[in-house]
Amino acid sequence: MAQVKAEYDFQSQPNTGELSISAGEVLTVIRENIDGGWIEGRNVRGSVGLFPESYVTPYQASRPPPVLPPPLPPTSSGPPAASSRPFDDWGGASEVAAPPSYGAQHHHQPTPSVPEVTRSSYPSQNDDFDDEWTDEDDEQEPTRPNVQSSIGSNSRRDLSRSHSEHGGPDRGSNKVNKNINRFSNFVKSGVEAYVIGESKTTSQISERHEVVMNNGIIQWKPIQQYYTCIVDKPKKESKLKGLKSFIAYSITSSLTNIQRQVSRRYKHFDWLHEQLSAKYVLIPIPPLPEKQVAGRYEEDLIDHRKHILQLWVNKICRHPVLSQSEVWLHFISCTDEKDWKNGKRRAEKDEYIGGAFLNCITVPHQPLDPNNVDMQVERFQRSVKTSEEAMRVMQERMNMFQKVFAGPVKQNWQKMGSAFKTLQQSFEIDETVASRRLTEALAYTASEYHEIGQVFDAHTKNDMEPVLENLYSYKGTVQNVPDIIQVHKQAVQKFRDSEGRLSSAEAEKMKQRIDAMSYTVIAEVQHQTAEKVEDMKSTMGTYLKKQAMFYQEVATKLTSLAARYD
Amino acid sequence: MAQVKAEYDFQSQPNTGELSISAGEVLTVIRENIDGGWIEGRNVRGSVGLFPESYVTPYQASRPPPVLPPPLPPTSSGPPAASSRPFDDWGGASEVAAPPSYGAQHHHQPTPSVPEVTRSSYPSQNDDFDDEWTDEDDEQEPTRPNVQSSIGSNSRRDLSRSHSEHGGPDRGSNKVNKNINRFSNFVKSGVEAYVIGESKTTSQISERHEVVMNNGIIQWKPIQQYYTCIVDKPKKESKLKGLKSFIAYSITSSLTNIQRQVSRRYKHFDWLHEQLSAKYVLIPIPPLPEKQVAGRYEEDLIDHRKHILQLWVNKICRHPVLSQSEVWLHFISCTDEKDWKNGKRRAEKDEYIGGAFLNCITVPHQPLDPNNVDMQVERFQRSVKTSEEAMRVMQERMNMFQKVFAGPVKQNWQKMGSAFKTLQQSFEIDETVASRRLTEALAYTASEYHEIGQVFDAHTKNDMEPVLENLYSYKGTVQNVPDIIQVHKQAVQKFRDSEGRLSSAEAEKMKQRIDAMSYTVIAEVQHQTAEKVEDMKSTMGTYLKKQAMFYQEVATKLTSLAARYD
Repeated sequence: MAQVKAEYDFQSQPNTGELSISAGEVLTVIRENIDGGWIEGRNVRGSVGLFPESYVTPYQASRPPPVLPPPLPPTSSGPPAASSRPFDDWGGASEVAAPPSYGAQHHHQPTPSVPEVTRSSYPSQNDDFDDEWTDEDDEQEPTRPNVQSSIGSNSRRDLSRSHSEHGGPDRGSNKVNKNINRFSNFVKSGVEAYVIGESKTTSQISERHEVVMNNGIIQWKPIQQYYTCIVDKPKKESKLKGLKSFIAYSITSSLTNIQRQVSRRYKHFDWLHEQLSAKYVLIPIPPLPEKQVAGRYEEDLIDHRKHILQLWVNKICRHPVLSQSEVWLHFISCTDEKDWKNGKRRAEKDEYIGGAFLNCITVPHQPLDPNNVDMQVERFQRSVKTSEEAMRVMQERMNMFQKVFAGPVKQNWQKMGSAFKTLQQSFEIDETVASRRLTEALAYTASEYHEIGQVFDAHTKNDMEPVLENLYSYKGTVQNVPDIIQVHKQAVQKFRDSEGRLSSAEAEKMKQRIDAMSYTVIAEVQHQTAEKVEDMKSTMGTYLKKQAMFYQEVATKLTSLAARYD
Repeated sequence: MAQVKAEYDFQSQPNTGELSISAGEVLTVIRENIDGGWIEGRNVRGSVGLFPESYVTPYQASRPPPVLPPPLPPTSSGPPAASSRPFDDWGGASEVAAPPSYGAQHHHQPTPSVPEVTRSSYPSQNDDFDDEWTDEDDEQEPTRPNVQSSIGSNSRRDLSRSHSEHGGPDRGSNKVNKNINRFSNFVKSGVEAYVIGESKTTSQISERHEVVMNNGIIQWKPIQQYYTCIVDKPKKESKLKGLKSFIAYSITSSLTNIQRQVSRRYKHFDWLHEQLSAKYVLIPIPPLPEKQVAGRYEEDLIDHRKHILQLWVNKICRHPVLSQSEVWLHFISCTDEKDWKNGKRRAEKDEYIGGAFLNCITVPHQPLDPNNVDMQVERFQRSVKTSEEAMRVMQERMNMFQKVFAGPVKQNWQKMGSAFKTLQQSFEIDETVASRRLTEALAYTASEYHEIGQVFDAHTKNDMEPVLENLYSYKGTVQNVPDIIQVHKQAVQKFRDSEGRLSSAEAEKMKQRIDAMSYTVIAEVQHQTAEKVEDMKSTMGTYLKKQAMFYQEVATKLTSLAARYD
């Protein structure tokens, strides 16, 4: 029986047939390719259940771990693309392609079996959005790991492309070698190619961005026209005469020139997320809501996903680069079916993605002090690590609060309420005049205590849920930061390693490219830092206000109760 | 190995070596007579621990249940008193007496081994209060079952006495037979003797009480001069040059003619409780605090016991009969050592206890309608049962609240506080100007959240504890009600059974005695009903006020926190 190894923790939902798995755990596969993204398997303790394919990698206990293949000759364009499975999630292509294996779906693992993808493999004849996907496919796709798999995964087609496209005879000088680890993010994202000056593109740059220096602060050129997008109450829609149903979210933008509403499904968001992650390789893209199998159409869950999509959209609207992104603007504005498909094709053919995107950024001429850059990046890294720890604890504690408040505490209020009712009945039996006012007070207490139980429950839903959603969004965003910093470090290292072997003119050009990259990274650090201040100020401020109102509500109810006993 | 059967539930305290037992459970005795009141035993699940002797009775699995002994001839005064153990808790008498067995300590069980006690067995030469008791004896006495064991148990010496004293040749008519079950409360308390007119006393009545009819309501003659008693912060005292230590409570009464402070130990309260239970057989005596082995001198426990003693004292002060009781007045006023001992001896020799006490009560001449009496008693019984149920739930829920608030909820607040602190640190790393106000807000939030955790903890102690103490006191009081009602019922039944066999003059006299008893019971029902109204009004009103203040405090803190995020 095939075995797989868990790469991430996966927490099963109750009553869904799911199986919790822990990173590192080895599982035996019973059935695979279930509903497009799940595996049924057994753990070593004998428990059987479903877990997402994308959380595991093939595992062969008896063999030594796979070794890296020898470095490719510069002319190689990689293994043939026949077995690849790019975008088979997208259209009907999967029906004609070979059945996908879960191993091929996992992109973080640098195993030789992951094929490089060339553009020729796009199932372009099937790339419309109104495809054969059942709603089940739509919604039962495996939960995405709680990371933007940006550089390593979502951008697989695009990033590997920069290899195949530049994989011809070595046209540069021999002095700078390519990295032998062609699966590192640094290489795959095309940043290496950019750094060594091999990021060649044929098309015109259509999207330009700028890093500016403002009172000594390096930042993205501020947004000229702020706009917002509203993700609306999602609707269940169906097609094929009701055979297939799905949830469609409407998006309404405040951009005056494109003031209209579009309808988008989760899989469209997912596609967009992939495009953004591939293109804006040094920008942490916020996370989409996790996919869920159970209770797909349950009110709470749909609301929850809508809120996280709203946070996602907010973060993009507030981002100086992302908010101006062509693919994004297309996403929020296109209502015409044909334009929509053209835009999709255009985005997928975009050359200025990954490392090549750095060519679209204008930065100040002033050279940067590498030590200063290092210091700023290092400081950001520490700050992110510290906030992540804080948010982990907050999430954990707030989940606990929810459990305790909506569970035993609510129950206690309501059972106390019933006891007040019983006590009232005992006084009614006595039929004494003295107790008449008391029995009224007790009856009122009974009903108010029941009500307060509900207030506690509502507090966990209405007041705590938004904080948890914000923490999820923040954590999902910064989880990409280490990858970005790593790519930046490798670029700087590349420059240092190469410097001695280059002519001063070449070195100067390379330094300029490194600086462009550092400007980009620092501008992004600046943006993320400012965003964190705003995010936390508003998230925590709002929460504390709601929390205060909640306790005030309980206090007011109790004060009015107590008065009845005077 | 000897076996015992649990007669009551006993809940072990953590880390004391105690073992929880459930009524009906059979346990194997490992060691008995430990510290005067504990048994070390093993349950069927193999757990070993200590439980109170008085909670169990001897158990012989292989033998049939003990049968009742044949009715005694009227001349019998019962088995010799040599093996009895009256008041060996009181003085050094236990040192000369045969070692007590736990079986003999249990009085509810009508086993033949329970000896009847005659006055001759009093260890009167040793009945001073300054006895050989170690503090351990004082405090490690077994927890009293959460019932006033009034009629059946505490009054054992006194009640059996009414038998032995009237156990001579049958001086009455043969028409009314004595009950064959000489261990029933009805018989033991001397109520039967009173009803059949055999309650003979030789001494003068010194304590008189009166039932009056007020606007058609039967009640105790109202208290002429209300007074209060304060149980003061207990002090640890020692004697024998510090070898023995104990807790002494001071009692200060507001009675003008005896305005002084006395010092009393728990065992003195216990003795008094026994006297009151024996004498006022139709009045439910409130419960003393439970005895505790663990953490005897722990601040919280001492406070807790003090509060329950205060509630006990309050209930007595508010009771028209008990507040005028000679033994009680002696207890709260006597400071002279010699007087104290004399008073003690006087109380123990009191003839007007149990059924005989009914001779001390003046009631209206108007005959009572038995049906009306029945209806009132039955209504009271239902009301008590209903309130008991309400209080059981309240106790349970409030205990739960305490556990949850002082446990996970407090912890959550404080861990959230730490997370706010960590978040603040992450902003400090960023060193941005924009975040300065936010970091201050976060630091303040961290410390206030920690503080709110404490407030929750304090709420469970300061606000919930008094309610629990009141519920304990109320429940302990009404737990005696079924016994009292049973005795009353048996008396009425006795009259009905005898009526046809009596001359009309005798029947008339007997009816008067039954009426005296019914007047007493209904006056007491009236008192208890009024007390419940006042108790619950003040307990619940106070609690709701404190609860409101607690939530208000949290709300105020949070409001001031939230303002810092604006």
